[in-house]
Amino acid sequence: MLGEKAKTIIAIDCMGGDLGEHEVLKGITKAYTKNKSLFFLIHGVGSKMPSLLKKQKRLTGAFRYIPAQQTVSMDEKPSQALRTGRETSMWCALESVAKGEAKVAVSCGNTGALMAMSMVQLRKIDGVNRPAIAVLWPSTNARGFNIVLDAGADIKADAQDLHQYALMGISYAKSGFNIKKPRVGLLNVGTEGHKGRSELQKAADIILESSKIFEFEYAGYVEGDDIPSSKIDVIVTDGFTGNIALKTGEGTATLVRTLLKETFAFSVMARLASFLALKPLRALRKRIDPRRVNGGVFLGLNGTIVKSHGSADATGISAAITLAYKLAQNDFQKNLANKILYKKKIPN
Amino acid sequence: MLGEKAKTIIAIDCMGGDLGEHEVLKGITKAYTKNKSLFFLIHGVGSKMPSLLKKQKRLTGAFRYIPAQQTVSMDEKPSQALRTGRETSMWCALESVAKGEAKVAVSCGNTGALMAMSMVQLRKIDGVNRPAIAVLWPSTNARGFNIVLDAGADIKADAQDLHQYALMGISYAKSGFNIKKPRVGLLNVGTEGHKGRSELQKAADIILESSKIFEFEYAGYVEGDDIPSSKIDVIVTDGFTGNIALKTGEGTATLVRTLLKETFAFSVMARLASFLALKPLRALRKRIDPRRVNGGVFLGLNGTIVKSHGSADATGISAAITLAYKLAQNDFQKNLANKILYKKKIPN
Repeated sequence: MLGEKAKTIIAIDCMGGDLGEHEVLKGITKAYTKNKSLFFLIHGVGSKMPSLLKKQKRLTGAFRYIPAQQTVSMDEKPSQALRTGRETSMWCALESVAKGEAKVAVSCGNTGALMAMSMVQLRKIDGVNRPAIAVLWPSTNARGFNIVLDAGADIKADAQDLHQYALMGISYAKSGFNIKKPRVGLLNVGTEGHKGRSELQKAADIILESSKIFEFEYAGYVEGDDIPSSKIDVIVTDGFTGNIALKTGEGTATLVRTLLKETFAFSVMARLASFLALKPLRALRKRIDPRRVNGGVFLGLNGTIVKSHGSADATGISAAITLAYKLAQNDFQKNLANKILYKKKIPN
Repeated sequence: MLGEKAKTIIAIDCMGGDLGEHEVLKGITKAYTKNKSLFFLIHGVGSKMPSLLKKQKRLTGAFRYIPAQQTVSMDEKPSQALRTGRETSMWCALESVAKGEAKVAVSCGNTGALMAMSMVQLRKIDGVNRPAIAVLWPSTNARGFNIVLDAGADIKADAQDLHQYALMGISYAKSGFNIKKPRVGLLNVGTEGHKGRSELQKAADIILESSKIFEFEYAGYVEGDDIPSSKIDVIVTDGFTGNIALKTGEGTATLVRTLLKETFAFSVMARLASFLALKPLRALRKRIDPRRVNGGVFLGLNGTIVKSHGSADATGISAAITLAYKLAQNDFQKNLANKILYKKKIPN
């Protein structure tokens, strides 16, 4: 077994997930089973935690438990969480990153509170105006997903913010997934130059200029139906539009899954059919399973934070931890900061 | 056969669809075959039209052909189409409605140009600030879809515009689909009161007040994944967000359909399975087929215009015509105008 120091240390906020801390612990064990070079700083609340931890036998020796006093609730306003949340598991998990004890923090708690606390504890990278949340979205690309940001860190973004999102998305694509020359598109209501709001037209000009300096391809405006396509790697939008688009996509996928299930329960023949097609149907389910691309990454801060979906189960939490590990390995944080710093030198 | 006068007359702009005027004519024939009380004013361009029309033998006696000089191209700016488009089939089809010769017009041409021309020819209903496009979206509701507006008539909307959209959506739900007390939700990035942009918070207050006067239920904020749900009938948003959300949903459904197809081509077993489950799979395909809920309705004008999807085939065009017929039958236009007029009397 590797010592704690040789391992990649990840801080986990166990509280706030819809399925409870037990499910989060199962997710941690799942991730650890696949990757023994992980070590966890587990932040939790309540008298049940020690016994729950004991049940995860395969996790023995791979974690340190750090008890906290409170949990951030899902409906807490970010401002309130900031004022009163210094004793929460969320705050303490972020502190582990701020103090350099952990490389990345993972939480499935309240997104707004997590972003607010992250901004206070890690501070924005010099030159960044608004941090963003980048998510992975199933696509027909060979790698199986595209990067979309901002997925909801902020409800507005001007042209310069959108340009910063583009640069952050490019860094993420390069460091996280080894995409050499990411293709970046700006989400709009049409692909023609005159379409959309004025800040988009201004952002398009800036991003095009920027593509002459940084290694990426500006693919112009893209529309909602391009998000799952293979013609693009990074999709840039403001957090209001991004959040609603992604949730609409999620809702649609869920609708189709529900109807598909009903379809195969329709008759004896259909049930027999679903038995015959078990293997490919399972592969399909895996392909469109949002749990497997779980993990929104906070970009633009001095530290990497992965926000797992609130409803994530063990599989989803394990995926978020695996993503956190990948980013920790690839010096993602340093590359991003360098880019933003360099960007400040060029006209914006 | 009914005489032209006893029929419901619908003006059709045959030009601008991705699949050409022949497909539009096939769609007209399809709609007519199902409903013999329709009569069409067919607006087309080019020397081929008369012979194409002759081929639609089942349509004999159910239409009048009105040749035009030009076609509005798909990439034409609305302002340009307005300046130079008075000889187009689109303009002439709208003129049929403006002059009272047709009850509704259907076009699958350039949306922006169609809206701009509609506003000039039909003018906005007294009291309406921004017209909107309402679309039907597949949902788990018993009727199989929800109403979403604005789907892209305008790229912005303030609180009062959103309130008008709510009223227009309610009228559409009542007249178009006999929903007695529609449940109306405001699209936002969260359901808590403090979430989202300030115009949404103001709109929420106005719509809640309005629900005390008009017969509908204000269901509060809804999120993207509620669009296909059964907890809501009408979803209100600005045209930028609405357009992107809907296209993202469409893209997701297309992705799943593509993957599903691949799944059943995977092996001999899977192909056998898809044969066994042919009937339920067909039912599923029908259920999530965007062609069957084709037709964006322009709301807020003195006349009803149905915008068919540019890529619609005969099935899609037939669905749009059927929708146009339903609205013509139910005095939709009059009900909507009454509501907006009444609304002006209450504080907004």
